[in-house]
Amino acid sequence: MPLKNRVDVLIVGAGPAGVMCANALAMAGVDVRIIDKRAVKVATGHADGIQPRMIEVLQSYGLAERLMREGYHMHMCAFYNPRPDGGIERTSRVPSTIPPTSARYPFGVTLSQAAIEDIFLDSMTDRGVEVERPKRPIDIEISEDDDELSSLSSYPVKVTIESLDAVNESKTEIVHAKFVVGADGAHSWVRKALGIRMEGEQTDYIWGVVDIVPETDFPDIHMRSNIRSTSGSCKIIPREAGLVRLYIQLSDADVVDPLTGRADKSKITPQKLISVAKKIFHPFKLADPKEIDWWTVYIIGQRVASSFSVKDRVFIAGDACHTHSPKAGQGMNASMSDTHNLAWKLTQVLRGWSGLSLLKTYEHERRKFAQDLISFDKKYAALFSAKPKTVENGDGVSGEQFSGAFQSFGTLTSGIGVHYSSSTIVDPKHQQCAKNLIIGKRMPPYIFIRAADISPVEIQDMLPSDVRFKLLLFIGRMTEARVTELTLFAQELSQPSSFLLKYCPNGDISATFDRITIASGNKEDFDYLLIPEFFRPHWTRVLLDDTDVTGNKGGHGYERFGMDPEQMTLVVVRPDGYVGTIAPFKSAAADMDDYFGSFMLPRGLDA
Amino acid sequence: MPLKNRVDVLIVGAGPAGVMCANALAMAGVDVRIIDKRAVKVATGHADGIQPRMIEVLQSYGLAERLMREGYHMHMCAFYNPRPDGGIERTSRVPSTIPPTSARYPFGVTLSQAAIEDIFLDSMTDRGVEVERPKRPIDIEISEDDDELSSLSSYPVKVTIESLDAVNESKTEIVHAKFVVGADGAHSWVRKALGIRMEGEQTDYIWGVVDIVPETDFPDIHMRSNIRSTSGSCKIIPREAGLVRLYIQLSDADVVDPLTGRADKSKITPQKLISVAKKIFHPFKLADPKEIDWWTVYIIGQRVASSFSVKDRVFIAGDACHTHSPKAGQGMNASMSDTHNLAWKLTQVLRGWSGLSLLKTYEHERRKFAQDLISFDKKYAALFSAKPKTVENGDGVSGEQFSGAFQSFGTLTSGIGVHYSSSTIVDPKHQQCAKNLIIGKRMPPYIFIRAADISPVEIQDMLPSDVRFKLLLFIGRMTEARVTELTLFAQELSQPSSFLLKYCPNGDISATFDRITIASGNKEDFDYLLIPEFFRPHWTRVLLDDTDVTGNKGGHGYERFGMDPEQMTLVVVRPDGYVGTIAPFKSAAADMDDYFGSFMLPRGLDA
Repeated sequence: MPLKNRVDVLIVGAGPAGVMCANALAMAGVDVRIIDKRAVKVATGHADGIQPRMIEVLQSYGLAERLMREGYHMHMCAFYNPRPDGGIERTSRVPSTIPPTSARYPFGVTLSQAAIEDIFLDSMTDRGVEVERPKRPIDIEISEDDDELSSLSSYPVKVTIESLDAVNESKTEIVHAKFVVGADGAHSWVRKALGIRMEGEQTDYIWGVVDIVPETDFPDIHMRSNIRSTSGSCKIIPREAGLVRLYIQLSDADVVDPLTGRADKSKITPQKLISVAKKIFHPFKLADPKEIDWWTVYIIGQRVASSFSVKDRVFIAGDACHTHSPKAGQGMNASMSDTHNLAWKLTQVLRGWSGLSLLKTYEHERRKFAQDLISFDKKYAALFSAKPKTVENGDGVSGEQFSGAFQSFGTLTSGIGVHYSSSTIVDPKHQQCAKNLIIGKRMPPYIFIRAADISPVEIQDMLPSDVRFKLLLFIGRMTEARVTELTLFAQELSQPSSFLLKYCPNGDISATFDRITIASGNKEDFDYLLIPEFFRPHWTRVLLDDTDVTGNKGGHGYERFGMDPEQMTLVVVRPDGYVGTIAPFKSAAADMDDYFGSFMLPRGLDA
Repeated sequence: MPLKNRVDVLIVGAGPAGVMCANALAMAGVDVRIIDKRAVKVATGHADGIQPRMIEVLQSYGLAERLMREGYHMHMCAFYNPRPDGGIERTSRVPSTIPPTSARYPFGVTLSQAAIEDIFLDSMTDRGVEVERPKRPIDIEISEDDDELSSLSSYPVKVTIESLDAVNESKTEIVHAKFVVGADGAHSWVRKALGIRMEGEQTDYIWGVVDIVPETDFPDIHMRSNIRSTSGSCKIIPREAGLVRLYIQLSDADVVDPLTGRADKSKITPQKLISVAKKIFHPFKLADPKEIDWWTVYIIGQRVASSFSVKDRVFIAGDACHTHSPKAGQGMNASMSDTHNLAWKLTQVLRGWSGLSLLKTYEHERRKFAQDLISFDKKYAALFSAKPKTVENGDGVSGEQFSGAFQSFGTLTSGIGVHYSSSTIVDPKHQQCAKNLIIGKRMPPYIFIRAADISPVEIQDMLPSDVRFKLLLFIGRMTEARVTELTLFAQELSQPSSFLLKYCPNGDISATFDRITIASGNKEDFDYLLIPEFFRPHWTRVLLDDTDVTGNKGGHGYERFGMDPEQMTLVVVRPDGYVGTIAPFKSAAADMDDYFGSFMLPRGLDA
């Protein structure tokens, strides 16, 4: 198929942020192209950690199973500190995800960035989208015409693309796009071309990274470990296929050129990194590895872009808009989370379901997150690079201080704690209806029972990233009075003026909104056919808050969410799995009109 | 590749028993051929239920994931009985697997036999084994020569195979096999050719079966349901893709020809079956289905073959050696279990690891099971076909009696209860060392923690069907004294006279026996490197009896198994997942010499 020079979305850069975006759009059937300047994708090294929340996100795209099968699972984290008599000793082991019960998958997964990208690339290929490479943008122009910028039928971004493939005859191509996503890394061409500044600064911390298959008697080599010794710090990340990544703190003496006083990366070799690691490992032995899979050296920079978008037509995502230390395992996760946040919004707008204004929430939500991440990273990187407290160095950071900080940052590093603040798509007005279901946070995992066949079902599996909003109607206990209320509510919602029909472009409610009903009741006698048909568009859409047949899964969901089973409560989950709003039964219809009316477009109208 | 007319194992019949056998042998690298007389495999109908134990078995071959993804899961079972005022009503719902906590997968899976066979056929294809069809055996001869029969290098079974494919030029072929497995169904040619009798009789119970996509207001149509009404009985089995199977009891009036007094299947049509079902369903409605996916009528026969083998060179398996009613969902499961039991034994013998005598345990174990199954089936089928107790019929079977019987047969119908009695491979001598780990029953599922990385691990996943015996050394609490004992034990087992080296054909212990060490300890400080290397051939082979990081999985395994954590206990799990024997530490080496010495061949000797 010849490539079209008119495209709905053009993505620049096929790293984690780019492929997450391209795959999400491809799965939604959006017209998308993605280019990358590298002739071949990275094969080794780079990022390698997927945090618990990102596993949930991958699961919502049907991609988590392969990730977990191919990757290494980190359940626990060991802390080593200086021994009074020299060398190091283990002072504690704590769960790697804190608190472990907060996550559906209470572990991080490590796998090479190349293998992670492959998961997305294969999924994209299944949907006919391939990365075009080596190609790079050399010019970008955004229309200044307000009519063009506000119309969905126009292509207001003009990008000139150069093919770097020598065999290719026609070297440049002009592409007209409705939207452009710059996911082109820390040195982002898109960001620079748009004149977006990076705010923040470089630090003095210099670290080396090396991927090896270690030979060692270090007892926790198969566990995530943080070593702080008088010879420096080291972080151990076990990986797939026996690989282990070591992050090694370097001293000025290792790196700084005494003549210029500047860091000189060329002074470092992987052998040098290993020799530093050996000192840190003492009294445990680390043999010279037979092979170095990958290595690098970096100076930590902590910066956030001043803006994440220009005119809501060009967006930047991933390393293009935030850089920080890699040691909390955030880089790839933050990058993918950016485009997981952006992709459904672009799709809703392109389908004419939501207005362009929805796109403003991207910067609102993701820039705030990036700033929080950097401020955490400053504390964490400083702690990691600080000297440990010893008899000789009473001012150092103690083992307790360090592991305490690790634990207090738990929900941030796991990704579980991300909390989007109020906006058109986050309305916390009725938070009191479900005290433990935090509006603006992701819908937590929980097991309910499918009423028709008593199968245990993870609620997150009912919330795939499929661009639809999910309406979870918690109907409480089924009394006769409740059935009557439900019947009347169904009639109200079936009116053409109801939000369900008003914001449903083709009259088929389930194409835009998925309706899920969750009752409080017993599997021994609950009859789902008593629920009005309107609230069970399919038999799989009625859940029960009860245990499964073993008694080991599910039950007490109302209690867990802080809901009253005597009341009806409507929970709106966004297409990306975050709780958008909650409404009590008595005002639910009006609340939904307000909520969806603030960004969705009434049927029959265009953007 | 031209087909070889010398083959180690020839399988006749590619139904469930045949493909289970062929796949197990193919996975083990055994030289195998499989023929079937049908030109194409069945497409619809036939068996459709996989019981909880068989899911575990499939998991041990790496095939359960696909089964569970494609199939329907039955968690609960509803009972309907006559209402005093006519029609039926639900009297209870109970777990479908009883007790539900006994099974790793507390549900049955339903899927068409065709789709289940495909799982095996695809796995076989990956290993280069295809079903040859349409081909049938027309002659079989077993050597009478004792030397030939006792030598593993001879091919004492001669089978003449006829190709039924008209295009095929050479119509017959003579195959010389070391072993033949007759898995050719209830009318088995192999069984008849060998003159093996079926013992037992035909019953009077006549049932119809129909697979439809139902339109009904019956509340439990997505659940396994047993309906007993004054118009007869009906069993509902929900299936994949919206299909439902109905088993419908027929009366003599429906089937018996009044002139001859004999059952006449030609009197029955699927429309007739539906009309009977409609009466049974009353007051619930069952619409005329748009399409009948499959249907049949059968008279229940309850028979077991007098022998399962001739000279331990030809075996029969599956329907060829037992037939019974399909209503407890046993047929396909019993058939597959036969060859799951046989395949590893054939492989051990063909590899020269075990002597031919091992094969005697096939009939010993599976014929006893078949007899138990038939005696259960007689009770169950009679109950199912009996009239329900009503005001008019005080002598009928009450709802409580029926569901009580269903529950009391729970571990038999789930397959969990299978208990092989004493033999060379089942030695219950030291049962008291682990009171709840029943020797002769399958190793129950349990979650332990992998010591090196604190991953929760299902013990059954450490016991794949890979022809190796698994040695589970429960070392209890790790004290200094324990380490000393372990070191001495390792030395003892490393002697050439030790069973591990005596019965290990190539000096590589792990090729024949998998060593797994399970300690009692805490994940926060347990150090697996303290265990002598002999007992940790790989870092994944050391488990810990503790909870995972969430506290929700694992822990208390010693207690669950009835073991004393102050003692060391050795548990032998057979290649098919059944506990072979258990030994206390003090006599373990001698006990193992006795156990393995009774059927394995010392290194360097041939069968």
